[in-house]
Amino acid sequence: MADAARIAGVLAAIRGRRPLIHNITNYVVMNNTANALLAVGASPAMVHAAEEVAEFAAISSALVVNIGTLSAPWVASMKAAVEAAAARGIPWALDPVGVGATRFRDQTAADLARRKPSAIRGNASEIMALAGLAGAGTRGVDSTQGSDAALDAARRLARETGAVVAVTGAVDHVTDGEALVSIANGHAMMARVTGLGCTATALVGAALAVEEDRLLACAAGLAFLGIAGEIAAARSPGPGSLQVHLLDALHLLDGSELSARLRLE
Amino acid sequence: MADAARIAGVLAAIRGRRPLIHNITNYVVMNNTANALLAVGASPAMVHAAEEVAEFAAISSALVVNIGTLSAPWVASMKAAVEAAAARGIPWALDPVGVGATRFRDQTAADLARRKPSAIRGNASEIMALAGLAGAGTRGVDSTQGSDAALDAARRLARETGAVVAVTGAVDHVTDGEALVSIANGHAMMARVTGLGCTATALVGAALAVEEDRLLACAAGLAFLGIAGEIAAARSPGPGSLQVHLLDALHLLDGSELSARLRLE
Amino acid sequence: MADAARIAGVLAAIRGRRPLIHNITNYVVMNNTANALLAVGASPAMVHAAEEVAEFAAISSALVVNIGTLSAPWVASMKAAVEAAAARGIPWALDPVGVGATRFRDQTAADLARRKPSAIRGNASEIMALAGLAGAGTRGVDSTQGSDAALDAARRLARETGAVVAVTGAVDHVTDGEALVSIANGHAMMARVTGLGCTATALVGAALAVEEDRLLACAAGLAFLGIAGEIAAARSPGPGSLQVHLLDALHLLDGSELSARLRLE
Repeated sequence: MADAARIAGVLAAIRGRRPLIHNITNYVVMNNTANALLAVGASPAMVHAAEEVAEFAAISSALVVNIGTLSAPWVASMKAAVEAAAARGIPWALDPVGVGATRFRDQTAADLARRKPSAIRGNASEIMALAGLAGAGTRGVDSTQGSDAALDAARRLARETGAVVAVTGAVDHVTDGEALVSIANGHAMMARVTGLGCTATALVGAALAVEEDRLLACAAGLAFLGIAGEIAAARSPGPGSLQVHLLDALHLLDGSELSARLRLE
Repeated sequence: MADAARIAGVLAAIRGRRPLIHNITNYVVMNNTANALLAVGASPAMVHAAEEVAEFAAISSALVVNIGTLSAPWVASMKAAVEAAAARGIPWALDPVGVGATRFRDQTAADLARRKPSAIRGNASEIMALAGLAGAGTRGVDSTQGSDAALDAARRLARETGAVVAVTGAVDHVTDGEALVSIANGHAMMARVTGLGCTATALVGAALAVEEDRLLACAAGLAFLGIAGEIAAARSPGPGSLQVHLLDALHLLDGSELSARLRLE
Repeated sequence: MADAARIAGVLAAIRGRRPLIHNITNYVVMNNTANALLAVGASPAMVHAAEEVAEFAAISSALVVNIGTLSAPWVASMKAAVEAAAARGIPWALDPVGVGATRFRDQTAADLARRKPSAIRGNASEIMALAGLAGAGTRGVDSTQGSDAALDAARRLARETGAVVAVTGAVDHVTDGEALVSIANGHAMMARVTGLGCTATALVGAALAVEEDRLLACAAGLAFLGIAGEIAAARSPGPGSLQVHLLDALHLLDGSELSARLRLE
């Protein structure tokens, strides 16, 4: 189970091994995501061409697939990369950005969710929408998106897909369908910086590259971001500063800071 | 007509309603634009796939189309999104980045300008080039780009297209072809940060989502950026800091700051 | 030969002429690259559409081609832009990001390297891989990537392609195949910010736009970044701050700072 010492161990492993993380992600967050992965100690690469995506996935330590800015060629590359990763037992994380908003997003997210992601991370709306699409008992996005309802959807989605599922918000919940880890770090101003959810998924990818216990890996990735985010928010008058200080805090994060701040529930 | 109280009212409306702003914009500025929209209180999304762009435009409160980094599939998506927005009376803003530089840009900008944008924002060269292309009396980009000449072009472009037209620079001018509002906020260092013109157009989009008086909405979007920019410049040794402090200042902007600093002419 | 006075002269020429730099570069770094070019005094544009790329290259003062995030349409545009630049004697710089990692990258980089780039900049692995592909005596990426081995590969690549070749790292080496300039500026934390190698190549492009001595131009571009980077690192607790302060330092860079800090070898 996740605790501060084991989460600190995941951080140390990322810094020791510098795993290559293959990202197929959206245009909005590519720069921040790459910088967050570098700050935590991983080695990011953004590669999406049909001609090279499978070859690149096969030399990476983890794959992160994020559907934020979709187009048909990118969807084909996502599937090719996932197949290449799966064929070699390379872990991969899915971020179903905006699922529920359009049919194209629904189809893409549902198709990817069926391809055995190691982990899925989304906000409450996304996890509830995806759980519905995956045939896990709910249809569409519920109008009331309380965390209890999302947690139930996360459990069903985990059982249906085999993924560890993380639903992030004021409190982050991680479940494999049975066990549950909840993390109460972070700061409300983080929602005013674009793409920090995408950054969370990328950090989960880095953790999956070095840690086989997927529940622990997901909890670790979310803990890194939540703790760095609250350190950054404490010195930031607004979201511009927060993004800058967040990267500094990820870079400076260490085991004692993790122990002192981690709020597992 | 625009005044500080009404502009502060637009800001309050954005923060109260958190309108969803659909952006089809260039790769260079996606991150900043999204962050500026979040900082002012709106909810940004970047969606461009042919398979979903019309569906997404129809659920948004405003659409922003920016031609900074073009390609044929994106142009097709821009047109599809504009049609979907127009069919539902959703306001949309056009940013004709670099019009006048290549025939492809000229054709694309002229085609979009004919599709009844609610607002068009560009610098002096762009507005003069687009006024020429739109058959509004001048051909190509004039070699002397004084603000008087651009203002004349802006008026003609507004009458020809039905858009409210904003030409931004040291002083920003907004016109519907008859009335004129000029805003003298901002700072020279803002021109050394990439994409602040694109950010201006995005903020105009957010204002159009909540305010039917388009002249007021355009003036409000430009005032938000100009005032936040001069606050940020005062504490920034260079353009790196300016971008960061600008997002903080947009986040912290309030009615009393607006009243104290607004320089309407 | 390069010295502090001549490098300061290149900076003054960029600021005086504000050359238009056409970039076909990767999604991850577009924003930073544009901001770095603005900070040093150049005028950046990112243009990649098949319909306009040759026309735009022909009106620019230099072209920068960076293969970080490839796809088939972009490769076609890179070639068209290079042809248009070459036809008019416009200098162009190649950044072979990730060459050696996939066959698509190898083919693309080798094809571009044969089209007479004015300059090529890469890290040790990339220069060694490209030297091998260019038939310059080594195959693939050597497992031991010491700077001596990379320097030898750089010399061979320069002779084979006619480009001035820069291999960057703790010490940057620039060679035309015979002469060598080495620059020992910079800071280790710069490797934790994504895309600073890409920024180096963009700054080399800006220098090539105003300086015909290509060895001097390459040394100047690398010196601007190394010196601004070490100024920024001295006040940065982590890589988030470093990116911000780097843009400020590029903006504030002047001849006396250059003279005081330049470490040519």
